[in-house]
Amino acid sequence: MTGKLTIVGLGPGAPELMTPAVAEALRDATDFVGYDTYLDRVPQSNPDQRRHSSGNRVEIDRARHALQLATEGRSVAVVSGGDPGVFAMAAAIFEAVETGEECWRGLDIRVEPGVTAVLAASAAVGAPLGGDFCVISLSDNLKSWDLITRRLEAASRGDFVIALYNPTSRARPHQLADAFALLRQWKPAETVVVFVRAAGTPQAEVHISTLADAHTVAADMRTLIIIGAGATRLIDRPDGAPWVYTPRSERGPQ
Amino acid sequence: MTGKLTIVGLGPGAPELMTPAVAEALRDATDFVGYDTYLDRVPQSNPDQRRHSSGNRVEIDRARHALQLATEGRSVAVVSGGDPGVFAMAAAIFEAVETGEECWRGLDIRVEPGVTAVLAASAAVGAPLGGDFCVISLSDNLKSWDLITRRLEAASRGDFVIALYNPTSRARPHQLADAFALLRQWKPAETVVVFVRAAGTPQAEVHISTLADAHTVAADMRTLIIIGAGATRLIDRPDGAPWVYTPRSERGPQ
Repeated sequence: MTGKLTIVGLGPGAPELMTPAVAEALRDATDFVGYDTYLDRVPQSNPDQRRHSSGNRVEIDRARHALQLATEGRSVAVVSGGDPGVFAMAAAIFEAVETGEECWRGLDIRVEPGVTAVLAASAAVGAPLGGDFCVISLSDNLKSWDLITRRLEAASRGDFVIALYNPTSRARPHQLADAFALLRQWKPAETVVVFVRAAGTPQAEVHISTLADAHTVAADMRTLIIIGAGATRLIDRPDGAPWVYTPRSERGPQ
Repeated sequence: MTGKLTIVGLGPGAPELMTPAVAEALRDATDFVGYDTYLDRVPQSNPDQRRHSSGNRVEIDRARHALQLATEGRSVAVVSGGDPGVFAMAAAIFEAVETGEECWRGLDIRVEPGVTAVLAASAAVGAPLGGDFCVISLSDNLKSWDLITRRLEAASRGDFVIALYNPTSRARPHQLADAFALLRQWKPAETVVVFVRAAGTPQAEVHISTLADAHTVAADMRTLIIIGAGATRLIDRPDGAPWVYTPRSERGPQ
């Protein structure tokens, strides 16, 4: 009896942003493994489907549990929000495969992509990613603040649009303000900064600011922050917040 | 009579990777505007839906045409592959709004996100994006090679995973080899390099190489290239190509 393991991304939140491929993987699974918040979004297709929920900080234990279930012949769906490859469960699963039991390397493992938060946040305000961009998690649970600083500096020197995931949490309330202070050394004060909370859900909230004022805007773990490149611009609208976009050309709007 | 304009991302190719929100926007549209290759993927929901196809290099003209149609009261779907905000039509539309007729700013414009190629490519090989990453288009149609070089260097200095879109074309056959030569100055020769052609389609093809040998691997405009960070690793499998992943922690697999 051979099991399988599919690592799926539910997308940013709204059911209509989840791909049909992920919906099918969820229908076919015998077991769901994931962080409670994401498991709560998974529909029950039949009464035999089992749920194995866990807290946010135990990714490797959760990964090993999922691999063990697949070894026992179960069809396991490991559930992440957004895309499973972007600050989510896919890396934890492969880490567990590499460091775990030899037989796990022979398992049928698939990854089903999803719409990650930065794409939903970008869509909510226009087209801020129009040029090249970087995606950085501001969490220092698994990497040093020195490395985060080095990456913020490199992204600034390259004039990339910068998307920040996990910008703040109760355990690290000061880092986002520290990051903005660092970025002000390398980027103009008038750089556009966009905050999108709960992007890709009906509760989405947008705030548009500048690097000079960004530290005054409230953010939490559900906020995705996009810091513009030098070329990122606003378009005023007769009603509603301005559009934000980055022209495709280095020479500005054509 | 008020029209509307929805900028949609079809996803990487397989219909099951297109979101239901995009499918609904396509069903509701009266007019489709886009590059022929993408329009060919749009199903006809009713015989009255009109198609306005165009070549690949006329994005601004296409954007203006779409906005004009919406002004005339049509419900226009502007179609891109992948996600519309990543090297696709969303930036062109907002550029046309900013530089075009005043009334375009009052139009009902929405962006519907999609699964962009880097997410499908990552899913095809494991979890190479596990850490922070940069997304760079190698096309110098709209930006200088100097800026591309500067961004490749910045991304290397920051030890980001680097995803390259539009790596090569008939008009610029040498740039990809030039880019690899540049990257070899800043990144180790053994850095993992992944080529995924037609990611997120049934025809997907994967090649895994190193920075030392990457210039010998064939690539075209449908290839997405992922260049690992220092920590990106392979996991050998009993059958099939190795998995590629980047551990979540700076300290390596936990």
